[in-house]
Amino acid sequence: MADTPVRFGIMGCAFIASKVSRAILLAPNATISAVASRSIDKAADFTKANGFPPETKIYGSYESLLDDPDIDAVYMPLPTSLHLKWAVLTAQKKKHLLTEKPVALNAGEFDEIVKACEENGVQIMDGTFWVHHPRTHKMKQFLEDKELFGELKTINSCFTYFPYAYPEFFKDNIRVKPDLDALGALGDAGWYGVRSILWATDYALPKTVTALRGAVLSEAGVILDCRASLEWEDGKTATFHCSFLSNLTTDITAIGTYGTLHVTDFIIPYQEHEASYTTSSRSIFKQLFTGWAPLPSEHAVTVDLPQEACMVREFADLVLNIRNNGAQPDKKWPAISRKTQLVLDSVKASIDKGFEPVEIVGE
Amino acid sequence: MADTPVRFGIMGCAFIASKVSRAILLAPNATISAVASRSIDKAADFTKANGFPPETKIYGSYESLLDDPDIDAVYMPLPTSLHLKWAVLTAQKKKHLLTEKPVALNAGEFDEIVKACEENGVQIMDGTFWVHHPRTHKMKQFLEDKELFGELKTINSCFTYFPYAYPEFFKDNIRVKPDLDALGALGDAGWYGVRSILWATDYALPKTVTALRGAVLSEAGVILDCRASLEWEDGKTATFHCSFLSNLTTDITAIGTYGTLHVTDFIIPYQEHEASYTTSSRSIFKQLFTGWAPLPSEHAVTVDLPQEACMVREFADLVLNIRNNGAQPDKKWPAISRKTQLVLDSVKASIDKGFEPVEIVGE
Repeated sequence: MADTPVRFGIMGCAFIASKVSRAILLAPNATISAVASRSIDKAADFTKANGFPPETKIYGSYESLLDDPDIDAVYMPLPTSLHLKWAVLTAQKKKHLLTEKPVALNAGEFDEIVKACEENGVQIMDGTFWVHHPRTHKMKQFLEDKELFGELKTINSCFTYFPYAYPEFFKDNIRVKPDLDALGALGDAGWYGVRSILWATDYALPKTVTALRGAVLSEAGVILDCRASLEWEDGKTATFHCSFLSNLTTDITAIGTYGTLHVTDFIIPYQEHEASYTTSSRSIFKQLFTGWAPLPSEHAVTVDLPQEACMVREFADLVLNIRNNGAQPDKKWPAISRKTQLVLDSVKASIDKGFEPVEIVGE
Repeated sequence: MADTPVRFGIMGCAFIASKVSRAILLAPNATISAVASRSIDKAADFTKANGFPPETKIYGSYESLLDDPDIDAVYMPLPTSLHLKWAVLTAQKKKHLLTEKPVALNAGEFDEIVKACEENGVQIMDGTFWVHHPRTHKMKQFLEDKELFGELKTINSCFTYFPYAYPEFFKDNIRVKPDLDALGALGDAGWYGVRSILWATDYALPKTVTALRGAVLSEAGVILDCRASLEWEDGKTATFHCSFLSNLTTDITAIGTYGTLHVTDFIIPYQEHEASYTTSSRSIFKQLFTGWAPLPSEHAVTVDLPQEACMVREFADLVLNIRNNGAQPDKKWPAISRKTQLVLDSVKASIDKGFEPVEIVGE
């Protein structure tokens, strides 16, 4: 058993499940044991379309997946509003949980999910790929370099896309349905912006969060576009923008006293095998402003595993340590998810209050 | 006389005057006739240090420069608070005016200056180099391309620098002296952010301007760091950040429905002879999110004249048309400057009102 990789059950056949399934098969310490959909035909089609091992079990209900004793962990790509129910059940069935983001509709729901995980000794991690990319660790080293970067002063992050080729998106997609993904662009895209800001600040919660005027909501009240400003006690500031209405853009710009980091493909790198970012340190305008010295430098990071497979590997390592060695679940990942969720809540609250600032209280 | 280039008088020997003087000498239709400082020795030293023609006249007062009948135009690098007095006098002496930015401390002062220019039939232009760079025109073509860029949705712009090598900056520099450059970072750096936003929006004034919380003011009340959000009636949004407290960063990101523009050296290009920018159009995440298709593309623009010499050339063309052909002064440049000034005023007002939104009224 100790040599058995983490056996995953895929709960739902959303598009993103194809990508994460591939990652599970690529990760050296994980495998796919079962796939469940509310329709057994859909599960069977999904299994075939994604080239799963022939022994993969196929279930026509999520309950039967959870009842399978030969499954260690569940990957959950369900619409956000279904997470609370199914995540809690997953934990109660002693399955570890890799869940798509946002983890929950709000921090209250989030806490119920984590409570269930803690009570049942299972690991929870959210499916934010990019934080597991080796490039992300390199970029973080730069932000931590007191000589090259100095003290972090401000971050601007953005994840926008416009599904112009899918006009039906705004009618049919779960991301804009109030009963499915009620947070809309804030949950789907803003999650990344908020996470990137927290990542840059070593997960220090801001003191105040203010949504910026001009947010766009659908007729059903789902956020299609919003921006927010965050401020910390020590003077750090940040802004982020998330949108379903603007062309695909995925930027982080982090500025310190001595250095600047630019990355324009932080969520999905332009190419899978190599990813880059740009830094500048202590550059000044040259004499007579004829240019910059030194020039910014580009850094490329090659990868052996795609970022989502790195994520699965990291999650599976934690699960194996629990399963094989009786270790406790790691608390870092739920803590990070929770802070992300708290900031999302504050942005939503600020929009609801007519763009008034919202104080974030407590950890 | 028709063949004589525009004869400039340099009013004040600030650092930036070295750069613009070089540009005047590089521009094919302009020359330097005189330099004035409140100290004649300083003017003489400046003339020598910058390799001006030996026949350049040297004045120990601004008044004597303005009394010189052989000067067509004045370049004014004085601290902002001195602009009103000297710009009006320059106009009254029938000299055309190329002035450093911000043009004035507020739109009221600005209007007094422009009124004097109009009454005396002289051209006014502010010294914002980058808008005259050939790259800027190329970038604008991209923003105007309905197929590649679509409709402009949002702009984020930033100009920050931290004079870490000059700790005396915060005590001695005119940029932080309330009686000299009272707008601080907003006037010195924010001017560029606001201008870049107006440039991207075809100089459409926003409806509301809201300074973001976390602005930093000096003890004397001068802005050292601030950010603001702008919103237009049609749903466009923008943010900018200006600062003396964060590492040198000069970005514009403009996002449309179909395209994205990135430039990270918009104020002073990394290199004088060539400047680039990056665009992406209708990119999507590839199947299984293994990358982007198409990839963004970088565009390089080579230049024959530095951007500030392009500026001088453009200004001098207008002046020659007035001087030689009796044309009227061009109204486009003062209109653009005025809008920039109006938005600066609104940001300042929003900070003064505790970060409340400020409506911009009238053109």
